[in-house]
Order: sequence, then C-alpha cells, then structure tokens
Amino acid sequence: MQGLFFKKNYLAGMTNNVFAFDDLRSFSKEVFLKMGCDEYDASLASDVLVSADIRGIDSHGIARLSGYVRLWEAKRINARAAIKILHETPSTATVDGDSGLGLVVAPKAMSIAIEKAKQVGTGWVGVQNSNHFGIAAYHAMMALENDMIGICMTNASPLVAPTFSVERLLGTNPICVAIPAGEEPPFIADMATTTAANGKLEILQRKNGLAPLGWIQTKEGKPSTDPHELKIGGALLPLGGDRDHGSHKGYALGAIVDIFSAVLSGANYGPWVPPFPAYVPMPENMPGKGIGHFFGAMRIDAFRPASDFKKHMDQWIQRFKSAKTAEGFEKVIIPGEPESEMERERKEKGIPLLGPVVDDLSFLAEKFNLPSILAAV
Amino acid sequence: MQGLFFKKNYLAGMTNNVFAFDDLRSFSKEVFLKMGCDEYDASLASDVLVSADIRGIDSHGIARLSGYVRLWEAKRINARAAIKILHETPSTATVDGDSGLGLVVAPKAMSIAIEKAKQVGTGWVGVQNSNHFGIAAYHAMMALENDMIGICMTNASPLVAPTFSVERLLGTNPICVAIPAGEEPPFIADMATTTAANGKLEILQRKNGLAPLGWIQTKEGKPSTDPHELKIGGALLPLGGDRDHGSHKGYALGAIVDIFSAVLSGANYGPWVPPFPAYVPMPENMPGKGIGHFFGAMRIDAFRPASDFKKHMDQWIQRFKSAKTAEGFEKVIIPGEPESEMERERKEKGIPLLGPVVDDLSFLAEKFNLPSILAAV
Repeated sequence: MQGLFFKKNYLAGMTNNVFAFDDLRSFSKEVFLKMGCDEYDASLASDVLVSADIRGIDSHGIARLSGYVRLWEAKRINARAAIKILHETPSTATVDGDSGLGLVVAPKAMSIAIEKAKQVGTGWVGVQNSNHFGIAAYHAMMALENDMIGICMTNASPLVAPTFSVERLLGTNPICVAIPAGEEPPFIADMATTTAANGKLEILQRKNGLAPLGWIQTKEGKPSTDPHELKIGGALLPLGGDRDHGSHKGYALGAIVDIFSAVLSGANYGPWVPPFPAYVPMPENMPGKGIGHFFGAMRIDAFRPASDFKKHMDQWIQRFKSAKTAEGFEKVIIPGEPESEMERERKEKGIPLLGPVVDDLSFLAEKFNLPSILAAV
Repeated sequence: MQGLFFKKNYLAGMTNNVFAFDDLRSFSKEVFLKMGCDEYDASLASDVLVSADIRGIDSHGIARLSGYVRLWEAKRINARAAIKILHETPSTATVDGDSGLGLVVAPKAMSIAIEKAKQVGTGWVGVQNSNHFGIAAYHAMMALENDMIGICMTNASPLVAPTFSVERLLGTNPICVAIPAGEEPPFIADMATTTAANGKLEILQRKNGLAPLGWIQTKEGKPSTDPHELKIGGALLPLGGDRDHGSHKGYALGAIVDIFSAVLSGANYGPWVPPFPAYVPMPENMPGKGIGHFFGAMRIDAFRPASDFKKHMDQWIQRFKSAKTAEGFEKVIIPGEPESEMERERKEKGIPLLGPVVDDLSFLAEKFNLPSILAAV
C-alpha cells in the first residue's frame, strides 16, 4: 500500500497530502483498536488526537500516532487502562491513569472535574501515571459546553533550562484556559511556557532555518540560533528568553505547571518525567508514576449569572479586537482565534500532512493490516 | 517635624533613611486609623502594606501610603467598608469590596477562600468593587500556614499594550502562586505578566537609565528604550516582549488575570480599570465596579497527604537549586528565594526608604498630627 503513495504524488514533488478530518479520525481509531483499546477509548483517543490537526497544532496530532504505538510496544502505555480515583474531596480528586493513553486519561479526568463543579461550583483533578495527552485545548474546552471555565496543564519530558541553568529540568509544560463567551467565539489560550513551542523548532530544523535569539541556548548556556541545538545538549528557554526579559517568570510558570501536575498528584516531575520517544531510556530513581496532568473546571454561575458574564465577555473581546494596531498589523488577535479559523478552513479543505507523516501512517496500515489511509483521499 | 529630617541626614547627602519594620507598620496603622479604618482593618492594612517593603518590593509598600490617602480624600476609597458576599457555592464566592482598601478587602476575601477549602478541598473567590491590594504574595501566602496552595491575582489600570496594539488595554496584572514545602522555604512566584514590572521602569526613570528593548514601546508601537515613554502614550509590553518571543503568551496571561479578576466578579476590566493616582479622571462608561481580584486556596491533603507532598516538594526544590549553572551564574534561583533573603536582611538591618518617600511620610505625619516617623529611627 505504501507504494501507492509514492506513485501518486509524494515523489512527484508534492510534500503534502490532504485528508478529511473524519478519515484521519477513523484511521487513528482503527489503530487504537488494534492496540487493544475498547471501542469507547479508541473513539475518544482518536477524537482528541486529530483535534490537534484540525486546529493546526500539527506537532501534536496524527504525526504522533506512530509514537504512541511505539510506547505501547515498549509496554509504557497500557491500552486497557482502568483509571482509578485514589483520593477525593467534594471539589478535588487525584486520579491514577493506570499507564493509559493520556488521550483517554485526560478527558476522563476532566469529566470528573466537570462533575465536581456541577456539585460544588468548581472541580480540580490531579493525575499521576499518565502519558502524553495531545493538545491541552481539547480537555479545557470540554468545560465550555457546560458554561464553565476549563483549565488544563501537563508536565512533559525535560527540554527547558530554568534561568541560569544549563541542565534541562522542565518540559514545555503547557497551560490552557478556555473561557466561554456569548455571541463571540470562546477565549482559548493554549500555550507552552517557553518562548517557542518545540513544534516551531522542528519546522526550522526541516527548513534549515535560524531561530530568533531567545528561543534556545547551547549546552554551555550561551544564546544560540541553531534549531538543532537540542540534539547536542542545548535547551529551550522559558518564556521571556533571558533574565532581562523576564525568563524567571516563564521558568516560574513552567515550575507551577510541573508542581500542580506532578508533585500534587504523585507523578514524576522535573528531570524525571518520562520521555515521549520510546527508544529514550527511562530516567533513573523516578520519584513518581508516569507523567502528570492537572485539570480545573469552574462553573460561571458559581460566581455570577452566566448570561451577565457572557455579555461582559463579549464586550471584553469586542474591545480588544477593535483596538488600534501598530502599523503593519491588521488587528489584535483574541487567544484561540487563529485555531478556530484554522478549524473552519481545514473542515472545508481538509488537513494537509507532510510526506513523512503519510509514510508513517502507511507503515501503521501495513503493520496492523488496515486499509491504507490513502483510500480515503 | 519635617525639618528634623533635613537636619539629620537627608540633606547631608544620604538618599536613604533606614527604618524598622515595626515602626513603619505602626506609622501606617496610625494613618489608616486617621482615615477612619477601625482598629482591626488599620492593623491588617498596615501589615499588608509594609510586607511589601520587608520583601523588597518597594514600589508596592509604604511609598504608596500617601496615594491611598489621596484616593480616600477623592472618595474613591471607603475606609469603613463592609465587604459582602454577593453569591456563593460550597467552593466559590463573589465578594463586593464596598470600595474598601484592597489592603483589607483582599486578605478578607482570601480568608473566605481558605475557609471554603477547609470545607470542600478548595476555595475560589472573585472580588469586585475593590482597590489596589499591595503585593499579591501577602494574600497567596496566607494559605501556607494552612498547608494549602495559595493563588492570588488582580487586574490594574491599563499600562500594557496587547501584541500588535498601540492602545493600553491591560494592567501589569500580577499572578502569585504560593506553595508550601517541608524543610525548604516555600515556593512563591509573584510576578507581573509583563516583561518588566512598572517599578523597574520607575527605577530607570530616576537614574535616567535606558530600558532593554522588549520592555516598552512608543505610542506608535515601535520598540523603545526610553523609560519615560509611558508618559507620552507609550506602553509596557506583555511578557515575551514581541510576537517572535512569545508576547502573545504574556498578553494571554494578562488577559486571563483580567477576566478571572473582573469579568467573573463584576469589576471593571481592560481599559476601564480605575487608575491608582487620584488625580487621573475615572474612565467613562465603566462596565463594572472598582478593580477586581481573584483568590484561590487548595488544601494539599485534598490531593495527597501533606507530608508526602512536602517531601517531594523538598526534593523538587533541592534538585533545581543544585542544577549546573551557566558560567557566571552562581545558582538556579527558586521563586521567592530573593524576597525571603531580603526579608531576613531587612528584619535585621531595617528598611531603607528613598528621600521622597520619607518626605511623603513626614507630610502625612503633619497632615494627621502624628508623631514623626523619624522619632523611631
């Protein structure tokens, strides 16, 4: 089946192939079923995974499917995980993810937070013993349809050097906050706590481009523009870039995510967070279980009537959108706007995948004896 | 009384006078009593105010006392405020600050959050109709002695331009997160969501220094190094500095603080937040009441036993503290460490105040017929 690709257009100079959202989701679901997930979990995991592609966060979408498979083969992911509440109060819970796919553990934990919020106004859930959970926005956005604010964060394997450090002690540790509005689309801030997400570095690596100063440092802690620096001991930098520009704040934000996600839940933290690539050995003397997440849900009407809030949220958004801009810039962007626009565009025109990603999917199709994804093109 | 200063050492070439913490606190308390605060509120307000000086956040301490007095004279601060819970659920409350001193409203609201956390695991309180509340760290740190994580944020009058904007639509909108440890001092991240706090700009203004690029922009939205730029329509920049360095993330963080503090509580948001200087007119068409805050308290043992958490928190801190540093840097700093060190030093050696601040206090002493603060030196 892989041959077909090459014949069709991959080797004919096209670097992209375009696929429909539903087809990528169905294909991912089949792969998760082959890994041994039950119907519900396979559906959920594929929905979370491909929500990254439709929103334009290509680094966290179906491009990672083969990575999840390799983690499963290395027995680091349990496809039949049964998550368990270890401890709870009316507004909190600590969940053991049973080494499951983060793509499944995370939305289930967020559902617990939402249920608690229904009962007592807010719900807060720490998760240990999980794995990479796709994009944070998917989970935080689950709150929106319940007229709640959703909060989601996760730690990740260490790529980031705290201010003054040459050691990599933090992951890109993203935070997402999703806030409902009325007429306006919701406010959705989903961001790594670094100057630039790792995905942006990967794009520069492929293009052999240079990174702006402030994104990365060498293994000696010197400023660097080489996007390949991480492969030779360099590190990503916390939001701010250097001390003069507030990198101690980006470091503190990444640290808060690490502590909320892992020290509170009993997961691994700092340099002990397990790596995503299955070939990278696990750290020694791990202090916890798996990677950690933290979820929050706050009912709007636990503070004020939802209709009042939404009216003012619309006014907030409209005021910021209509702000006077500096020359050369069209408008002030509301967090989440570019991803919503991307979603509209890709729902209509399809999701372009890079050649190597398509190859990966073909490899998975052969491996699991599934119909080629190409059939859907 | 003011004359005494000049004779003693102020005009003799010294720019600083050094005062004991307790004396500055007593003096502030007397001033708050003269404004009409009751004994409890005056005590509380002075404790909050001077906690900034002892921790080295001079811009938010007793230097602002005369500013609070002017707001009270302008009838923007109600010294006899009775805060009121407008709405609540088991884990949340919305509080009306009754135009009170933020220095009083904030710790009372944080106490409500802590009480709720005792009952149901976490507590979250939005506040409307308040004023400037001193340093965020004071309120967040109230959680520590209860073995809770404390969270505190506030909006502030607009000085910050969102990415691509030339209009100032956000305040420096700080976030503080205070996390208890075991043997180690607590982790306390208290930060403006801008590249640099306004206080740092004020220091450069006094020294006629230049700011690094990335802190401020001109009124046309061009990069600037002039610390006086804000007086002629320029703006502070969100953490990140520019789009290439992630300023959209700093902007999103400032926006989240604004929305949590004000859209959720019914306070003013964005460009409508009331100014701190009493001579600056109030914005037109204000959509809410006063300025807004947001507080959170999470009981550690709502997630896992506090002793387990503290053991791991100590390990987290020790690992980060002992990280290998880049050449020229002594160690990786744990958030809150510099302020704790300052507190130790100033408790022993006293708090130095700049000449103009001492003048301000002498002026207040005369105005309210109080013994000069100099008597305490």
